[in-house]
Amino acid sequence: MIALTELPLSNYRQKYEQELFERVIPFWENYSPDRENGGYFNCLDRSGKAYDRKKYVWLQGRQTWMFAKLYSTVEPKAEWRNLALLGIDFLRNRAVNTDGRVYFCVSETGEPVYLQRKIFSECFYAMALAECGRISERPELLREAEEMLAKIWEWAFDWSKLGRPSFSGADVGQSLAVPMILLNLIDEIAGEGWARYRAEIDDCIRRVRLHCSAEERCVREFVAPDGSVIDTPEGRLLNPGHAIEAGWFLQHWAQRLQRPELSQLAIDMVHWSFELGWDYEYGGIYYFLDVGGFSPTQLEWFMKLWWVHCEALYAHLLNFSLTRDPADWDKFVRTDTYTFEHFSDPQYGEWYGYLDRRGSITHSLKGGPYKGCFHVPRALLLCWQLLQKLETET
Amino acid sequence: MIALTELPLSNYRQKYEQELFERVIPFWENYSPDRENGGYFNCLDRSGKAYDRKKYVWLQGRQTWMFAKLYSTVEPKAEWRNLALLGIDFLRNRAVNTDGRVYFCVSETGEPVYLQRKIFSECFYAMALAECGRISERPELLREAEEMLAKIWEWAFDWSKLGRPSFSGADVGQSLAVPMILLNLIDEIAGEGWARYRAEIDDCIRRVRLHCSAEERCVREFVAPDGSVIDTPEGRLLNPGHAIEAGWFLQHWAQRLQRPELSQLAIDMVHWSFELGWDYEYGGIYYFLDVGGFSPTQLEWFMKLWWVHCEALYAHLLNFSLTRDPADWDKFVRTDTYTFEHFSDPQYGEWYGYLDRRGSITHSLKGGPYKGCFHVPRALLLCWQLLQKLETET
Repeated sequence: MIALTELPLSNYRQKYEQELFERVIPFWENYSPDRENGGYFNCLDRSGKAYDRKKYVWLQGRQTWMFAKLYSTVEPKAEWRNLALLGIDFLRNRAVNTDGRVYFCVSETGEPVYLQRKIFSECFYAMALAECGRISERPELLREAEEMLAKIWEWAFDWSKLGRPSFSGADVGQSLAVPMILLNLIDEIAGEGWARYRAEIDDCIRRVRLHCSAEERCVREFVAPDGSVIDTPEGRLLNPGHAIEAGWFLQHWAQRLQRPELSQLAIDMVHWSFELGWDYEYGGIYYFLDVGGFSPTQLEWFMKLWWVHCEALYAHLLNFSLTRDPADWDKFVRTDTYTFEHFSDPQYGEWYGYLDRRGSITHSLKGGPYKGCFHVPRALLLCWQLLQKLETET
Repeated sequence: MIALTELPLSNYRQKYEQELFERVIPFWENYSPDRENGGYFNCLDRSGKAYDRKKYVWLQGRQTWMFAKLYSTVEPKAEWRNLALLGIDFLRNRAVNTDGRVYFCVSETGEPVYLQRKIFSECFYAMALAECGRISERPELLREAEEMLAKIWEWAFDWSKLGRPSFSGADVGQSLAVPMILLNLIDEIAGEGWARYRAEIDDCIRRVRLHCSAEERCVREFVAPDGSVIDTPEGRLLNPGHAIEAGWFLQHWAQRLQRPELSQLAIDMVHWSFELGWDYEYGGIYYFLDVGGFSPTQLEWFMKLWWVHCEALYAHLLNFSLTRDPADWDKFVRTDTYTFEHFSDPQYGEWYGYLDRRGSITHSLKGGPYKGCFHVPRALLLCWQLLQKLETET
């Protein structure tokens, strides 16, 4: 245990506040809105110039959610509400097909470009609907979010319903991504009314547990339906950032459900993944690893990605807020130091997304098909709020 | 012009011979055959141990072709013929579905794992059939190759026939990959009987030309059907290794068709792509670039891949054999030096596949879902044969 008064909490709180409100949010406020067609340009180069005018729907949904969340939890600024509604109206009008499926990518004007045989566009759309329902006089949005969640639940554990073929030789298993995103989604949609999703929550927790091995101290990305190990590159895959994010999603539920053993598992998931995932030679957290020690087959396994570090910042701070263990504080500080030194861009705002193993910037873009206004501001917001809470406890 | 006698041709010829027959082919002979189920293990770690027993069909077809080619052009060794037949029998029995589509991946015993909505598994299968038809008393294999080619041709320029949906907002265009692989495939299947494919050859040449811009000195990977530029990351994408490979495919046709202007274009494609693609700071050829100077969005754009360098070795040597320009010889030597220093593994044989920008090995694997017994031995064989030919001209 460490006394909070011994820690520079207010320095960190100020740093996160400044980064969020002076460098990150203004970047998206200034460069992303498409006031003509609605939605946002999310493929932005270092300085905010759009290098691709297509609109990637994961990021449209996530940015919509982010601005609505700022409005609902930080300050009811009209501009934030307007930006959220710019996103949600574009999404409702342009991103959903007649089957209720949500496109992965649409053109500048909202013509469909690509539909994935996955559930994630739908998840980020549903999050956006729910938060916009809360900040506007449009309760139908919250209802639509719940309807979307019902559809997602129906599809989530059988992607053949989305047109993905299943072949006799393919390993049957489940990906950590699915139960973890559903835990977050139920949290976002149901809020305090979560009790009506109790069965779904319990099922997702059960499924996340299948990926966790206390013996091996790791969280596998893909396991057999009974949790047993699949000895292939897919079954040996570790995605430390994912497991760390799943850890804090689970911790939120452990706190709400008041289940100490679940809280400990959530802490362990973060600890194991950080221990295995940290690069002790060059710093930062690897993107992928093979728990058997083989080369991962993903070309980008050794890269250091912004979102992985965003998740670790909040997960370590959350752990520390519960354990008061100086080792958790040290993990937060170690991650914070690496992250701000390598990803932040004081000159143009927002963060770089991609570094090589040694920490050199490989991509100057600030937004792309998988990076937008989401992980950086969400992590900064969550850390800033938690640092404020810790300060009040000193 | 440079006199051949001034060049250390025999040193290079010996080096390529040794690398091919002492370090590369033995690796695959020793570690890849699955004598029990047929086919080959193609996911092999540095020392040849299988880290995944699934069989990736691109590599099954390519390895089959490679051993048949060694048998037909180097020496009729029974072991090479047997290895080729081990591959083709597995493929014919296990890799083709009832529609004539060829799987992307099958299990160790040949159960289907994944089917791509692309034509490449079919292309590598057809190459393998044709070469096995030549080396065995099984003329039906050559007939099957021609039938497969007919199917591929029907699918090649409209992937909606393979179940790939087309959406109203997606840019219509064509990928360089398709006409270039077809040029190679017709060459492999028809051989001296190419005249009956004259219309298809001309159409592929016309299509490859659409990707080439003498003004910008570049070869774009994706262009509109009339060759005009699409100003998106997809339309600005350069894949120098691909363009260099397309260059030598085209050069083979230019020689056969005796068309000097086509030969010059093929030379230019290699020159432009090498000039744009070479990393003047750390050496090696980039995987992807954006011709507009933006960050490519592919995470692995800055990496140095073995196959890109394999293609460049042969393309430069082929150019030199035609131009006798010392600058082409220098490009061959520069590529050779980088390639052998970075990719070759004298200890265990075969080559590493993946380096970071600075040339450090990122993946210790020798075979994986996209790397097998193909680019290294094909390039070594082609260079060795051409060096022999040049030696005879001194």
